Amino acid sequence: MPPVSRRAYPVEPLLETLRDVLGERLSTAPAVREHHSRGETSLPPALPDAVAFPESTEEVQAVVRACAAAGAPVIPFGAGTSLEGHVAAVAGGICVDLTRMNRVLRVSAEDLDATVEAGVTHRQLNRHLRPRGLFFSVDPGADATLGGMAATRASGTTAVRYGTMRENVLGLTVVLADGRVVRTGTRARKSAAGYDLTRLFVGSEGTLGVITEVTVRLHGLPEAVSAATCAFETIGGAVETVIATVQLGIPVARLELLDEVQMAACNRYAGLALPAAPTLFFEFHGTARSVAEQAEAVQELALARGGRDFRWATGAEERAQLWKARHDAYWAALALRPGCRALTTDVCVPISRLAECIVETKRDLAACPVPVALVGHAGDGNFHLLFLLDPNDPEEVAAVHRLHERMVLRALALGGTCTGEHGVGLGKLPYMAPEHGEALAVMRALKRALDPHDLMNPGKLLPEGS
Amino acid sequence: MPPVSRRAYPVEPLLETLRDVLGERLSTAPAVREHHSRGETSLPPALPDAVAFPESTEEVQAVVRACAAAGAPVIPFGAGTSLEGHVAAVAGGICVDLTRMNRVLRVSAEDLDATVEAGVTHRQLNRHLRPRGLFFSVDPGADATLGGMAATRASGTTAVRYGTMRENVLGLTVVLADGRVVRTGTRARKSAAGYDLTRLFVGSEGTLGVITEVTVRLHGLPEAVSAATCAFETIGGAVETVIATVQLGIPVARLELLDEVQMAACNRYAGLALPAAPTLFFEFHGTARSVAEQAEAVQELALARGGRDFRWATGAEERAQLWKARHDAYWAALALRPGCRALTTDVCVPISRLAECIVETKRDLAACPVPVALVGHAGDGNFHLLFLLDPNDPEEVAAVHRLHERMVLRALALGGTCTGEHGVGLGKLPYMAPEHGEALAVMRALKRALDPHDLMNPGKLLPEGS
Repeated sequence: MPPVSRRAYPVEPLLETLRDVLGERLSTAPAVREHHSRGETSLPPALPDAVAFPESTEEVQAVVRACAAAGAPVIPFGAGTSLEGHVAAVAGGICVDLTRMNRVLRVSAEDLDATVEAGVTHRQLNRHLRPRGLFFSVDPGADATLGGMAATRASGTTAVRYGTMRENVLGLTVVLADGRVVRTGTRARKSAAGYDLTRLFVGSEGTLGVITEVTVRLHGLPEAVSAATCAFETIGGAVETVIATVQLGIPVARLELLDEVQMAACNRYAGLALPAAPTLFFEFHGTARSVAEQAEAVQELALARGGRDFRWATGAEERAQLWKARHDAYWAALALRPGCRALTTDVCVPISRLAECIVETKRDLAACPVPVALVGHAGDGNFHLLFLLDPNDPEEVAAVHRLHERMVLRALALGGTCTGEHGVGLGKLPYMAPEHGEALAVMRALKRALDPHDLMNPGKLLPEGS
Repeated sequence: MPPVSRRAYPVEPLLETLRDVLGERLSTAPAVREHHSRGETSLPPALPDAVAFPESTEEVQAVVRACAAAGAPVIPFGAGTSLEGHVAAVAGGICVDLTRMNRVLRVSAEDLDATVEAGVTHRQLNRHLRPRGLFFSVDPGADATLGGMAATRASGTTAVRYGTMRENVLGLTVVLADGRVVRTGTRARKSAAGYDLTRLFVGSEGTLGVITEVTVRLHGLPEAVSAATCAFETIGGAVETVIATVQLGIPVARLELLDEVQMAACNRYAGLALPAAPTLFFEFHGTARSVAEQAEAVQELALARGGRDFRWATGAEERAQLWKARHDAYWAALALRPGCRALTTDVCVPISRLAECIVETKRDLAACPVPVALVGHAGDGNFHLLFLLDPNDPEEVAAVHRLHERMVLRALALGGTCTGEHGVGLGKLPYMAPEHGEALAVMRALKRALDPHDLMNPGKLLPEGS
């Protein structure tokens, strides 16, 4: 944990000011503060002094201005699904819960874009889009808010084809640390007009401002979709199939890897009867002809690498069941050890090093004292481990942390990154200096330029003293 | 022109220091300084005090350090093909010509990426890649350097399918204003580890540092390629075809629009015999089947919108001739009026507003006193005008500037941007405040944070006093 301490500021006068703005929509109830003290994480919680529920950019602005005047930290909060401690109020302050800002403001089928308030979740947006023949592609496991997804540069199962939030956010409305409101980007698909502020705020984890509106790219629903699973004799064979698929440029829409532990967990949790073996989940989008062509090509690659049991799901319902099993992987793994907490972590490496990274990591895990499942957005070179530990058992915690650290340092040594999609938060702070070197000083300079008093989600993303 | 004046600094002592570093590779010859005083632009030139030709990141670092110590401006220079005055030494100082840093450092067919020195041009890189079955997609008209293309967030004919430099740069080596060297990004395809410094430097036009190495994404050469031109009765019909193609998600690799003026110029310059009518240039990439499917779909859309004369070029040589004609559009237009200069400008709008923007702009141009050609990366909503003017005729200059301004303000009013790909440089400075509003202050804060003494390409990208 970083040595962040509670910020001293006049709490009561600030709460009075905020009550003037928000009335009942400012809560200091212990249960509410507790609920906003952590995401889905084994990291220790930290309670905010109060939780604000603004309903407009102007209200967020008023909250941030009042906090700036008082010297109070501001912690943005979406669906609370962060995995790296992004929302813990480690320095105290005011949590800004954006879930009441949940309106879809505008959809353009002509331009394939939409503008939403930050509290809209991706499933909510897709329910809104489906009748119009459109979809929003970025698909993390949890039903996160678009604001949170932008703030953590989220990706998920479809990034291999459609990109991450980096590629899918066209513009943002952001309330800065001093309460100014800026709009970044335009609705044009590309621009060379100045610094790319949109991409600067995407992935900034609330440390540079509060995102209140997000403009995203949309896609037309594909004419044809098919999905399949394929079990492999070895995890190496599965990974080699992924690598070959990506290298051949086959435009798979989803390409997911679940190891034998995770498959057993999914079978049990979702009532499936798939082999408890390393398994790839595929999805293909396109015209009927191109979907068939892609499927054929991938099948050939898989069979040559120890793949067997290709199981197709072409009906919408069957497909939904398959992907629900994949999306519930986290909950399925948790159920492997009732009462445990998950330490969930992710790394991402160049695809050429993915087999090496996964095989060596799995070898390490043989010595792990607790159950651990592996799930990967393998097409991106990105994979996760879910360690199921008892946070009150110091031996377990120490062993898991050792294995975790070995995996992250291995990914860095292979030219990768300490997190492909979960973000830095608190959990990945120790790896920022090894990954970025001198560039970390540049990040610190940007933070100082936009938040000189370190009020925006302090203690996250940038290690102290960097 | 912005009110930038020559910076006062001890020129001779600095030149002596630089000669110690570079020897003969520091030039003060008038012809060399003149050559480095402007890009391809009608904007007035401004001579640097000397031109440095470093051969390594370390030499760039030594040059920048010496300039920082002396308080001298640093102007990075690639192929000199900038269209908005990016390389004019408006405040004096040292031009850093990176063309001797022209080595391809690393190509990975497995990861579909490459690292090159900043002075490598995109055609040079593609000659290197072709025997390996790979290509680098970003394709501006001129044979620009990768460093220059990253610095201006270049795009070009294939951005509609493969993205711009924003999507295709994975990482950079940058020498900062104080001489520190930073490496941004990793070789992983995605990362959520901190601020997106790569995207901050992409498009920063040399104002935040000197890019010395670029890591880019590559693609496998498509199995099948076909190209076609299609002439239209009206420019509106051509634009409507573009819009329909994009909205249907047909993955065209290139989708270019040339108006009747430009087509006549290309016919004359390249010895073609195409109709002198608004014309779309298409290219399709994929498997043989998918290329046929795409071509069929687009042909149907075009014929329903007044398209005629579909002319196919499936042979490599025939295709090369077609795209050479497109790439030479700039030179072809210049030849319409020997001795003139081109004022070349570009805007980009949401695709739904492209027809309106182009039709109204063409209506305006009927009153233009000089020839003007329209060329567009229409699939992106991006188009260019080339005004062929006599820079010594104040009436022509005034009339062209009026029309230019009307076009830019129209694009902004339609939700677009003042430049889709040429960058801000000097030419688009007046439109930064109208486009960005309060966000311009954020850009200024970033500039101050990374270049507090305003030594990196001063006078560009950010209007004075913003």
